Amino acid sequence: MKLVSHALKFKLTIAYDGTDYEGWQVQKIGTGVQEKIEAALAKIFPSQPRVHSSSRTDTGVHALGMVAHFEIPRSKPTITAQKPTIAARKRAITARKLPLALNAWLPPDIRVVSATRATRDFHARFDATGKQYRYFVWNHTAMNPLIRRTAWHVPRPLDLPLMRATASLFVGKHDFKSFTSNPGYARGSTVRTLTRCDMKKSGSLLTFIIEGEGFLYKMCRGIVGTIVQAGLGKFGADEIKRILAKRDRRVAGMTAPAHGLVLWKVFYL
Amino acid sequence: MKLVSHALKFKLTIAYDGTDYEGWQVQKIGTGVQEKIEAALAKIFPSQPRVHSSSRTDTGVHALGMVAHFEIPRSKPTITAQKPTIAARKRAITARKLPLALNAWLPPDIRVVSATRATRDFHARFDATGKQYRYFVWNHTAMNPLIRRTAWHVPRPLDLPLMRATASLFVGKHDFKSFTSNPGYARGSTVRTLTRCDMKKSGSLLTFIIEGEGFLYKMCRGIVGTIVQAGLGKFGADEIKRILAKRDRRVAGMTAPAHGLVLWKVFYL
Repeated sequence: MKLVSHALKFKLTIAYDGTDYEGWQVQKIGTGVQEKIEAALAKIFPSQPRVHSSSRTDTGVHALGMVAHFEIPRSKPTITAQKPTIAARKRAITARKLPLALNAWLPPDIRVVSATRATRDFHARFDATGKQYRYFVWNHTAMNPLIRRTAWHVPRPLDLPLMRATASLFVGKHDFKSFTSNPGYARGSTVRTLTRCDMKKSGSLLTFIIEGEGFLYKMCRGIVGTIVQAGLGKFGADEIKRILAKRDRRVAGMTAPAHGLVLWKVFYL
Repeated sequence: MKLVSHALKFKLTIAYDGTDYEGWQVQKIGTGVQEKIEAALAKIFPSQPRVHSSSRTDTGVHALGMVAHFEIPRSKPTITAQKPTIAARKRAITARKLPLALNAWLPPDIRVVSATRATRDFHARFDATGKQYRYFVWNHTAMNPLIRRTAWHVPRPLDLPLMRATASLFVGKHDFKSFTSNPGYARGSTVRTLTRCDMKKSGSLLTFIIEGEGFLYKMCRGIVGTIVQAGLGKFGADEIKRILAKRDRRVAGMTAPAHGLVLWKVFYL
């Protein structure tokens, strides 16, 4: 005889093109990715489960590795000594089949990449130990039309060594108050720790890789906007330290546009 | 005193997202990339020049390195002993300014990447010595929504070593009649020489790189479709030689969809 939990929990990894969505979660008008996922789940599970995500992406921001969890009640929520019958097993949807089943109901700009069973106490948001964002910049006089929805077009020449030096200054534990649009949103400390902030170059494509335990509202885009403005000659690398020290959004650089940002990966222990 | 040519010739490199176009050139209905370029040129040059391209891409096929040329009459088409005045120079559009000027009139899915002056006898089509195409495949159960317009989704597992072996068989001089949808379109020999046909892998993304002097109608897509079907177990590598020898489209594999194909580069001496 063993104790069976009254709910099954699943962990989903979700990718989406954020172009046509008002972000992950919608407060007022527009369409959010979350409601599309919940609508697809409702087609499969009569309990109409709610999804809980690791993050809330802004309007227009994309994701390849968003993580979310949901629960469904077990069909026979009792203490049982019996193994499920073969028929019952066949009826039950497995984690392996879940992506195909959900993707059949989702629009093509949202895909469930994978699904696994999660432990009873797993929480996509509270258990996340870190996140990786990537930001794409196309640095050429003419935009590349094939990536115009997922990269920021910066036509002027950039000082790449200076940008690399600038990026490295963000690594470590800092008060990022100067780099968030809404410090009040943080409800507490604006100190965050970045474990990675660097830039790769492949032809005209620049890829910023930013990794950390947690992020403030629009923090990634504030950091990228400031690094790019440093590359355009607006800031010297030494000024970044002063900007961080000032703890004031008005002294930092611009917020890079949403459509270049991708939530790449969420880390769990 | 020097002889001045009666026309100025320019060479354009053009990139486009082919999703919303009926290919480069349109015969009957729909919109072609060519007419968009010509409409933009007509805004700048009163002579309304026609463009002549290196290639005609099919409906839905993309390009990052399409090449085309056009001519404009010189403003003072005479034998002259005088240098142009500074004012005349300022009025004349330079090749360097041409991309910005044209892109201001083009839709965001078409970009003029660069422009140079060409010699009087340059011809984008007849002078091309070779072309490189790239074909993108996303090989994962769920499609990557960020590249859904530029990659073919192949969800089933693929035998990559077999595909590499298959790809290498296409390199060299062969009669590609089995790999073109319309051999009559070739108006003559269906023999072509491929100088490169290989596959790179980066995570779930497969990139086919196909390079040759010239290509038959839908030949690239016939080759990629056949290699992918070999990877799915439909053909052994040894069968490819027999398929080439048969010179019959019906014996080869499927034509891969248009939206995964990009005209990457056109070569000139």
